[in-house]
Amino acid sequence: MTEPALAGARRVLAESPFLAAARGERPSHIPVWFMRQAGRSLPEYRELRKDTPMLDACFEPELLAEITMQPVRRHGVDAAILFSDIVVPLKAAGVEIDIVAGTGPVVASPIRSVADVRALPPLLEGQVDAVAAGVKLLVSRLGQTPLIGFAGAPFTLASYLIEGGPSKHHERTKALMHSEPRVWHELMDRLSDVALTFLRAQLAAGVDAVQLFDSWAGALSERDYREYVMPHSAKVFEGIADARVPRIHFGVGTSELLPSMREAGADVVGVDWRVPLDVAVSRLAAACPAGKYRPIVQGNLDPAVLLASWDGVEREVRRIIAEGRSAAGHVFNLGHGVLPETDPDVLTRIVELVHSEPVR
Amino acid sequence: MTEPALAGARRVLAESPFLAAARGERPSHIPVWFMRQAGRSLPEYRELRKDTPMLDACFEPELLAEITMQPVRRHGVDAAILFSDIVVPLKAAGVEIDIVAGTGPVVASPIRSVADVRALPPLLEGQVDAVAAGVKLLVSRLGQTPLIGFAGAPFTLASYLIEGGPSKHHERTKALMHSEPRVWHELMDRLSDVALTFLRAQLAAGVDAVQLFDSWAGALSERDYREYVMPHSAKVFEGIADARVPRIHFGVGTSELLPSMREAGADVVGVDWRVPLDVAVSRLAAACPAGKYRPIVQGNLDPAVLLASWDGVEREVRRIIAEGRSAAGHVFNLGHGVLPETDPDVLTRIVELVHSEPVR
Repeated sequence: MTEPALAGARRVLAESPFLAAARGERPSHIPVWFMRQAGRSLPEYRELRKDTPMLDACFEPELLAEITMQPVRRHGVDAAILFSDIVVPLKAAGVEIDIVAGTGPVVASPIRSVADVRALPPLLEGQVDAVAAGVKLLVSRLGQTPLIGFAGAPFTLASYLIEGGPSKHHERTKALMHSEPRVWHELMDRLSDVALTFLRAQLAAGVDAVQLFDSWAGALSERDYREYVMPHSAKVFEGIADARVPRIHFGVGTSELLPSMREAGADVVGVDWRVPLDVAVSRLAAACPAGKYRPIVQGNLDPAVLLASWDGVEREVRRIIAEGRSAAGHVFNLGHGVLPETDPDVLTRIVELVHSEPVR
Repeated sequence: MTEPALAGARRVLAESPFLAAARGERPSHIPVWFMRQAGRSLPEYRELRKDTPMLDACFEPELLAEITMQPVRRHGVDAAILFSDIVVPLKAAGVEIDIVAGTGPVVASPIRSVADVRALPPLLEGQVDAVAAGVKLLVSRLGQTPLIGFAGAPFTLASYLIEGGPSKHHERTKALMHSEPRVWHELMDRLSDVALTFLRAQLAAGVDAVQLFDSWAGALSERDYREYVMPHSAKVFEGIADARVPRIHFGVGTSELLPSMREAGADVVGVDWRVPLDVAVSRLAAACPAGKYRPIVQGNLDPAVLLASWDGVEREVRRIIAEGRSAAGHVFNLGHGVLPETDPDVLTRIVELVHSEPVR
């Protein structure tokens, strides 16, 4: 793999509140973006994507760029997140995988043996040129708004590949992990290369930050996470360190994992709605006794609360802002993705409310 | 409601290792049972239930008693758990609800308004006579093996009723909670009466312990749990205190909730696989500074691990036994229900292994 000079590949966005907060510097206002802000909650998204299957849309530069821009224009969020899907780099590498409406990703031949693992094709940089082209379009159009790159973490990719699709219990994944640790680590090593290649292509094209989504990591105990997952996610984070962009690490149900997810190499730890930000900050700080580390966090608003009355939403937003003040940096966000039935006007009002709060 | 003299309604089982551990006394061996031990992992269960819909089986005394007995005979577990379902008392009360194979409970008319809440029928004691009859059969047949009674907690019942079935995000439930707290509390109060009536009927018929299943409580933050849920589960526990049986409280993903679930009135706290038992014990003890409380715990083995090789299973069983020694009482169990594809021989081997370990 050629190593592009990643540190010099992007815009200078000195005034970005998102980048300031994500680096632990003082932003001009509290920054806010929403996971899945580009997507089904927006009528303009549903209109634009109506004739295009999900995975096709992720490989059309103009379309993915436009979808990525929609929530920036509508809500005035402080960051764009690349419109993509966790399985995009697998599809690009040649894995037979599709996204079935109402189900999620479906893998034609699930990985169940060491032979299956070794048959998994690597991702070559040129295979995600369409995504890189979309990133370049976005960088030229976003003005002063930073663009966050996107990849699924090795464990979440492994679960899709082994289970053959979304899974409630991840039972085959955990069985492989505990039965054949060598095969497990070989698969995870290959998947960390896939995630790394995908992120480096985005970074070379100009993204200003990255988020590694380990959506299902919360299904694991801390012990299993540290033994079977953390080294591989750490390889991904380490492999993009030269880009010197903020690296966000997010999963759901990660109460027990927050310090380990930071230790894997994250600059910003994403927190779901189960752990208040001040508690997350305490736990992150307690796990780093040197005293030099200052926790930077993102998240915490329960996406289901956005379906409540505005009074209920406003109360939660104000609570989260207050609790976020204990962090060295706070990026306001949800604790998981925007639900499709969310009224987009509520998202816009949240942005206005967050921006109206003083930075202390 | 007439108040039967619950304290005198059951057998004396002075030698039961399960009851000893659940009371913080020294058992003759470490007791073990499995959530969903009666069910689809057993061929004799699949055979017995093949012509009977799930909810019908729960109202046939002979059938539910036989299903409850099957894992006791096969595995030699230290407790039977009443074969039932979380929605049984709702069905008994006249709510139009069914269990659809592959989906779960489906409610004909979901509860969405204060009028819906007020139209929810109460459960009358006589409506669960068939369940009580099954309990009486079991008590006469189980010999020295104790029988654990079963009820779904108010929050989990509320989620089914509001969402209309199983839900990934519980979004309507949370929206009601945050938008209309008065309506929410009225519904929860009614549902705590339903759970209480169901448990008192089982206790009057002779069950030796009870477990309150709050399967979905882990979807909530501790703050929301304490404000919107705990008072209602506490009403259920308080309402059966006169029976003087061990009261177990269980949910999944409850890392943040364990002390609150104890505070609701549990004698034994069920722990999923995300929190090791020694950590759970520390957290429970730390939340009770008086020093008089000695944590009693149940659970922790990830049901997905049972699909791994025996080496992997054995390693986990030994770890959990070692970590459970920090508790005043340890009931060996899974961290969630037995998965249908589990090899029942693995369950039998686990029982043998747990029983072979010394009590310290």
